[in-house]
Amino acid sequence: MSNNTNIVPESYPMNGGDGSNSYTKNSYFQRAGTNAVKAIIDDVIAEKLDVEKQISSSKSTFRIADLGCSVGPNTFIAMQNIIDAVQQKYQSHGFASHMPEFQVFFNDHTSNDFNTLFASLPPERPYYATGVPGSFHGQLFPDFSLDFVHSSFALQWLSKVPEELLNKNSAAWNKGRVHYASAPDEVAEAYTAQFAKDITTFLDGRAKELVVGGLMVLIMPGIPNGIPHSGSATGLMFDILGHCLMDMAKEGLIREVQVDSFNLPVYVASPKEMTQLVERNGCFSIERMKITQPWARIDDLSGKACTMHLRAGMEGIISKHFGTEIIDELFDRYCKKHGEFIGLLVSKRNEGNQLFIVLKRK
Amino acid sequence: MSNNTNIVPESYPMNGGDGSNSYTKNSYFQRAGTNAVKAIIDDVIAEKLDVEKQISSSKSTFRIADLGCSVGPNTFIAMQNIIDAVQQKYQSHGFASHMPEFQVFFNDHTSNDFNTLFASLPPERPYYATGVPGSFHGQLFPDFSLDFVHSSFALQWLSKVPEELLNKNSAAWNKGRVHYASAPDEVAEAYTAQFAKDITTFLDGRAKELVVGGLMVLIMPGIPNGIPHSGSATGLMFDILGHCLMDMAKEGLIREVQVDSFNLPVYVASPKEMTQLVERNGCFSIERMKITQPWARIDDLSGKACTMHLRAGMEGIISKHFGTEIIDELFDRYCKKHGEFIGLLVSKRNEGNQLFIVLKRK
Repeated sequence: MSNNTNIVPESYPMNGGDGSNSYTKNSYFQRAGTNAVKAIIDDVIAEKLDVEKQISSSKSTFRIADLGCSVGPNTFIAMQNIIDAVQQKYQSHGFASHMPEFQVFFNDHTSNDFNTLFASLPPERPYYATGVPGSFHGQLFPDFSLDFVHSSFALQWLSKVPEELLNKNSAAWNKGRVHYASAPDEVAEAYTAQFAKDITTFLDGRAKELVVGGLMVLIMPGIPNGIPHSGSATGLMFDILGHCLMDMAKEGLIREVQVDSFNLPVYVASPKEMTQLVERNGCFSIERMKITQPWARIDDLSGKACTMHLRAGMEGIISKHFGTEIIDELFDRYCKKHGEFIGLLVSKRNEGNQLFIVLKRK
Repeated sequence: MSNNTNIVPESYPMNGGDGSNSYTKNSYFQRAGTNAVKAIIDDVIAEKLDVEKQISSSKSTFRIADLGCSVGPNTFIAMQNIIDAVQQKYQSHGFASHMPEFQVFFNDHTSNDFNTLFASLPPERPYYATGVPGSFHGQLFPDFSLDFVHSSFALQWLSKVPEELLNKNSAAWNKGRVHYASAPDEVAEAYTAQFAKDITTFLDGRAKELVVGGLMVLIMPGIPNGIPHSGSATGLMFDILGHCLMDMAKEGLIREVQVDSFNLPVYVASPKEMTQLVERNGCFSIERMKITQPWARIDDLSGKACTMHLRAGMEGIISKHFGTEIIDELFDRYCKKHGEFIGLLVSKRNEGNQLFIVLKRK
């Protein structure tokens, strides 16, 4: 709507198409996260979805939105899982004859490659598919028009880099680093404040769009309560990237001021932070809030696997700042540097690094 | 839905992007058609839209689909016109406080350039925008989920070329021509039969999707009742194209068998034909059915203007069959050949060549 389209956050699309560096072919870390939570989603729908209310409202369509869907295939798997669980609930409660039709809204930034997304839709899908371009930091759907919202590995993206990180006169100036994981407190605080603003606008939008009783599943990188930012596995991967960029700057391949002015707009939240933000919004009850361990299910934490993973998600934003010509060199270095940290990464395999949240519209 | 996704008609996307030969920059003939019918759409909504019913159903969203929307800008103008007219009706009936929110579903084949469409959405639009990939010869939306359907210059595209046109042993073999306008009756009959099948599946889909009382506006090339196919202005433009291709075949630039096996899957229907097909479906009342004269409003019927128009819509399908390398040559010839027929085209300026239909779901 007109009021919201003025909000045009920066967007960093995942690598499009289906080539060897595409997000389509390199999103199995995210997929591992999705698989890890499938059983929990099944449970939540079985326990929390109010089928009687759905039927009494005489609505024949069940509308699901995936916010920050990227280009697939993870979004297709997630939507199928949700629909399977809803159908199962209808059947197990003896309401098979009231089975709704499903309409799925695939949302991402306007710059997302929707053409690839649409071309790769499963041919035998049990739903009507639509694409919705735009930022989820504004309202994307009419009031009370969604029954279920899903968002996986999207909310960690900040809508913008906090301005003070680029201000030499600020205590939050992030010189020589690209993230806050091992930065001074002021840097982390700037990230935290921006994340809080973004989650606030996100929850405001969803509070309008979801029907009363509607469920929302949020999956994102997470850090257990009480662990310092520097202890996050996700943060460690970004630190390695920062080291590689600084090495390249020292060798004159890029300029150091370019590194100083580059910051990854990605935040890793704790359950405590998210709980506070949801409670402050006031429109949702928290049905689940937990840290999960998806890496425990990933066999391959090798340099190559981690590099491909990081590249598919971050190449766009890095190219935009440093130019495309440094990309191959940077990720070659990343792959080698990763070896120095492999022990640390493997030690974090069984630590929680993913936040899983289920909210219900009150 | 699974049953419908098996129907995958051939698709011939309009020229994408926004270059000088793009549909975006060369769809003013279609836009003239849209402008010509704006006043009629205003009237129809003012007279036929049942606002009381909409309000009593306590639905707060008014859902509009544009079927075969291409990449804009005509679809944006058309959707804005419809919303203006609906808002005007609410206001003039004293229901301003019940004003619905609007959700617009932009539909076209999966191969349509949705990325361009989404990037060019009006920033200040008074609606929530979604894209729906897929053929309108199947169901695209849940049952009873649309309030208004619009389709402009899309229904003339057949879902496939009738097979008998390519069969040397058939009386409908269309040797040396690319269309039926000046062909033997058997060729025209094959086109007519395919068109009837396509309109049947189209109406079946919309009968499911539209709410009772929902309106549908269809705009397409048309021919007055009782006029032979050879008298159609649209057919004349295709005949000129066929002549150019045969000239190129005679000069050895392409092979004659390539022309024999190429047929434009485009049909120009009469009000009488459409009336029969709607009545056979049985789910819709005919609120309007008329032939209009959009060319009377177009100043520029020059060779250049007509060539750009034809090229934006037909380059895709011609390239697919003959290869991209003949395109510039073909349309240069078309522009010149057009001069031989300019008198005839201008004489048709005030004849009806556009069919305008309003249906209401019974």
